[in-house]
Amino acid sequence: MRPDYDTAVAEIISAGQFLAKQGWAPATAGNYSMRLKNGCIAMTVSGFEKGELTPDAVMTVDAEGKPLDNRRPSAEMLLHIGIYTVSPETNAILHTHSKGATVFTKRHKDLKAIRLADYELLKIYPHISTHDTSVDLPIFDNTQDMKALREEVDPVLANGIPAYLIRGHGLYGWGRTMAEARSVVEATEFMLACELELRSVA
Amino acid sequence: MRPDYDTAVAEIISAGQFLAKQGWAPATAGNYSMRLKNGCIAMTVSGFEKGELTPDAVMTVDAEGKPLDNRRPSAEMLLHIGIYTVSPETNAILHTHSKGATVFTKRHKDLKAIRLADYELLKIYPHISTHDTSVDLPIFDNTQDMKALREEVDPVLANGIPAYLIRGHGLYGWGRTMAEARSVVEATEFMLACELELRSVA
Amino acid sequence: MRPDYDTAVAEIISAGQFLAKQGWAPATAGNYSMRLKNGCIAMTVSGFEKGELTPDAVMTVDAEGKPLDNRRPSAEMLLHIGIYTVSPETNAILHTHSKGATVFTKRHKDLKAIRLADYELLKIYPHISTHDTSVDLPIFDNTQDMKALREEVDPVLANGIPAYLIRGHGLYGWGRTMAEARSVVEATEFMLACELELRSVA
Amino acid sequence: MRPDYDTAVAEIISAGQFLAKQGWAPATAGNYSMRLKNGCIAMTVSGFEKGELTPDAVMTVDAEGKPLDNRRPSAEMLLHIGIYTVSPETNAILHTHSKGATVFTKRHKDLKAIRLADYELLKIYPHISTHDTSVDLPIFDNTQDMKALREEVDPVLANGIPAYLIRGHGLYGWGRTMAEARSVVEATEFMLACELELRSVA
Repeated sequence: MRPDYDTAVAEIISAGQFLAKQGWAPATAGNYSMRLKNGCIAMTVSGFEKGELTPDAVMTVDAEGKPLDNRRPSAEMLLHIGIYTVSPETNAILHTHSKGATVFTKRHKDLKAIRLADYELLKIYPHISTHDTSVDLPIFDNTQDMKALREEVDPVLANGIPAYLIRGHGLYGWGRTMAEARSVVEATEFMLACELELRSVA
Repeated sequence: MRPDYDTAVAEIISAGQFLAKQGWAPATAGNYSMRLKNGCIAMTVSGFEKGELTPDAVMTVDAEGKPLDNRRPSAEMLLHIGIYTVSPETNAILHTHSKGATVFTKRHKDLKAIRLADYELLKIYPHISTHDTSVDLPIFDNTQDMKALREEVDPVLANGIPAYLIRGHGLYGWGRTMAEARSVVEATEFMLACELELRSVA
Repeated sequence: MRPDYDTAVAEIISAGQFLAKQGWAPATAGNYSMRLKNGCIAMTVSGFEKGELTPDAVMTVDAEGKPLDNRRPSAEMLLHIGIYTVSPETNAILHTHSKGATVFTKRHKDLKAIRLADYELLKIYPHISTHDTSVDLPIFDNTQDMKALREEVDPVLANGIPAYLIRGHGLYGWGRTMAEARSVVEATEFMLACELELRSVA
Repeated sequence: MRPDYDTAVAEIISAGQFLAKQGWAPATAGNYSMRLKNGCIAMTVSGFEKGELTPDAVMTVDAEGKPLDNRRPSAEMLLHIGIYTVSPETNAILHTHSKGATVFTKRHKDLKAIRLADYELLKIYPHISTHDTSVDLPIFDNTQDMKALREEVDPVLANGIPAYLIRGHGLYGWGRTMAEARSVVEATEFMLACELELRSVA
């Protein structure tokens, strides 16, 4: 299921167009990647409008995150490498910045996870075949120290939930294909937006 | 008013583009169908992004729901068959997942119906020619047992209201044509979004 | 400033595309018109999706509202005629259905007008050159009796405000040109959406 | 980094399309400018729909704001001149009208600044490299007297924050390039929308 470089670039560009249209990529924020057939990672370079990406806006790093061209990847590349390392079946990662995720994580500022229960959309997550269950989506405090963050995040990835939140920052979501990663992000943002309303005064 | 297969496919694809743009088809959720001239049902296959459907994403089942090609239809196909069986004049059904419907049905978790009154848009429903009336839109609890759900739903369909809600899941709406089904969904989602605000603190 | 028929049709179609994109024309709701060079009125026929109008969806009535082809105009045509009769400089009228207008007028159900004050956008209304003023936008109760409604509305039109609301129904806005009518509708919907938030608990 | 006239016109038109799509340019509101290679300012003329600008909708003034063709610039041109004068590295300015900015500044009507803290998006502002900081975004009371407003605004520009709000009116944001100005506006509107929710009852 791992794409070649040209396919990865096309899918990253198309994901950016979709995510920007939803309002989840304000002000060039976010980064997207795919694991290639050869095990390297194609990844967006910082600073480009995500709704208007061109092939120039994609670079390659190796499986440890070492740049394979002379551009410097985003510091958050380390978080992508963390997910690819822990989860060998993952081939696409999307990191988005939504108002819902930002407001939720800032309002509930001591919450370490958000429980999502009784949503039909939970079935988008792998190995879930009923709404009648619950998932604890992890929330990590924001930091600019990506190594420290990765040490916190990596152990939690074993829970099998293909997404986590960073407080005041945004969402990471992933899957075996770009289509799966996009569905995870869509479903998670949808449920987060619902929770934000449900947990406010009715 | 029943379409041939090619027309049905075109109208289903176009409905998906419209509904996805409204945010009512997140993460491939939902399913759409039309009853054909020959009495069979053309219906979306699960797992495709609803805003980017292709003819491949449509399959056919007979009037009892038996697949006519070798793909497996969505389990919710049974709910479509239920509506087509009870309502012979119905030729198009749209099932959407909106934030409004999800939040409303989860917040008001014991409500069996939502009363919609004094909306000009009520005139979209068949046989209603004034805003000065009310409609009780049914809400069913979610389940993965489609046969059980159909036993609950079918008797209620006699009320003539061309729509119902499933809690934490979404909306079913229908009509004689795809245009009518789409108007029913648009009007119902509009009134639901209004009720959600009107029933919260002002 | 009055257009010929072909220009009017093109401007009505284009207005519909814009208004539908804003969510102000759900389920075919609303109607739009322009006064032609010859004094007749070009107006949308009911029942078409407003975002996908074609020339077929426009008909002509004379200055008293008598149909000039063999189609029946919407009952609300009378409200358009009322505005054109009282305001000779008006050549374009847009009637929209927004969630904001619907929720506001249903929540504040005894209010006969909504005061809009200290908005920069008030300068869109004719003869207003500062934000430091206020406008009382009229709200009429909904009815299916268009003659009765017109008797209520017509005297109020003398106030010079190019817009009014119908409770649980929507907004009428107008101007000398379609561009002016559209700006009036945009500015009014914007201020209404702000008032809805400002008048709820903060 | 200063563009020639044709590039400036193209970037202004494209910015207008983007901003209008976000709902930040209702009813022709707002104005956009760029400083040219020759030190003159290309700027939108009032009264055009910002999402549908044509080269006709752009005029030129000199560095003091004197029109270089026979059209009259918007009164707010003076605010643009103020920013270009105080900040020599600024070459693009965007002035938007959003519901979020309008509601926030009207609701908190005595607030002279809004504190934005702990947002990853703060890193969009120049010289900020961590979310773990705060910025006080200035809010000025609205007035039609642009000279008086400029006297209030100019001294505050020295704070280095590339944006300010005018109460009940909108946002000014700027940068060295149009891309930077657009990112500043996007990030600021995003954080404002979050603050509006975070400061209301949860």
